[in-house]
Amino acid sequence: MEYQRRDAEQMRERIIDAAVHLFEKGGSSIVSMRKIAERIDYSPAALYLYFKGKKDILLALSDRGFSLLYQRMLPVASTPDPKERLLELCRVYLAFAAEEPEYYRLIFSDPEVHYPNPTEDSASKPAYLTYSLLQDATQECMERGLLTAGDPLAATVGMWSAMHGVASLLSGGRMHVVPQERLDSLADDVLRFILR
Amino acid sequence: MEYQRRDAEQMRERIIDAAVHLFEKGGSSIVSMRKIAERIDYSPAALYLYFKGKKDILLALSDRGFSLLYQRMLPVASTPDPKERLLELCRVYLAFAAEEPEYYRLIFSDPEVHYPNPTEDSASKPAYLTYSLLQDATQECMERGLLTAGDPLAATVGMWSAMHGVASLLSGGRMHVVPQERLDSLADDVLRFILR
Repeated sequence: MEYQRRDAEQMRERIIDAAVHLFEKGGSSIVSMRKIAERIDYSPAALYLYFKGKKDILLALSDRGFSLLYQRMLPVASTPDPKERLLELCRVYLAFAAEEPEYYRLIFSDPEVHYPNPTEDSASKPAYLTYSLLQDATQECMERGLLTAGDPLAATVGMWSAMHGVASLLSGGRMHVVPQERLDSLADDVLRFILR
Repeated sequence: MEYQRRDAEQMRERIIDAAVHLFEKGGSSIVSMRKIAERIDYSPAALYLYFKGKKDILLALSDRGFSLLYQRMLPVASTPDPKERLLELCRVYLAFAAEEPEYYRLIFSDPEVHYPNPTEDSASKPAYLTYSLLQDATQECMERGLLTAGDPLAATVGMWSAMHGVASLLSGGRMHVVPQERLDSLADDVLRFILR
């Protein structure tokens, strides 16, 4: 039984790797069960033994995306000063948005991705691990008086949303109201204002 | 000449009205020069005398969207207390995002919409008028000490971006990290935290 379970796990990994390959070449729209099957020389019907369909595959890709973001955040997550750590975490977040636009779109705005409701083991998922880095640093900032006291959840979500908003509005060419010479430092200025 | 100019202006209005009708029925993807021409019983070729193409029409629609948002904001723009005014302006903004998702998407994230660089008369455009309501209230809050002093631009953009981020992440089902019972008041909590 253990042997079979490992076999299935390996098969799932092969499928996800093939999906990652396609996704990194052309985004979520070119990922299909048929193309994945072709790539690993498997029958499309058999894929459905491992994944319910494209939506299920996109969810697995999305986990990969969050893992990439989390891996990038980890090196700065040990910055001792929690406020500096928050700034660094947000900078990594913004760099990820700029350098991995396909993954960024997939995990934060692709309408085909539907995240399941949280369960008991959600805490170990890359999305939650990523969020918890921001959450812990915010909490610590407040406890140490480095951030005006207030609601830690509102602070964490506010910071994250502002970064997401800045990233989307900037990349979508919606920041014309901001003078050209302020654009480069805009995200940092916004962040520093929120973390005042 | 004046007569001709008025004629052309009326023609442009008719075209935009037809585009608005199509857009409100099915979003930007169903707006086309051909369908607009059909609706006003005009030849598609003649439309090009008034608009360079679909992108130009989407820009006009986008102005309409900003006008709608601005008209909704105006009634609360006379709230005397600037901090309460900011809260109200942001609430109107979020209600607009929820109630007019097509216009909201068009003006803030449709990749087919490319706003031109600002010119001397940009200040009278609905997008800039809308932004200036937020900007003025923020400035006034700072001058009156109702908002921790800081960079007014970072404050205005930060608030706007956070609202945009909350609206997009909520409507895209990306707020699973937030406990269910906090979702209803989330935008308001975030806003109050930023305006602390």
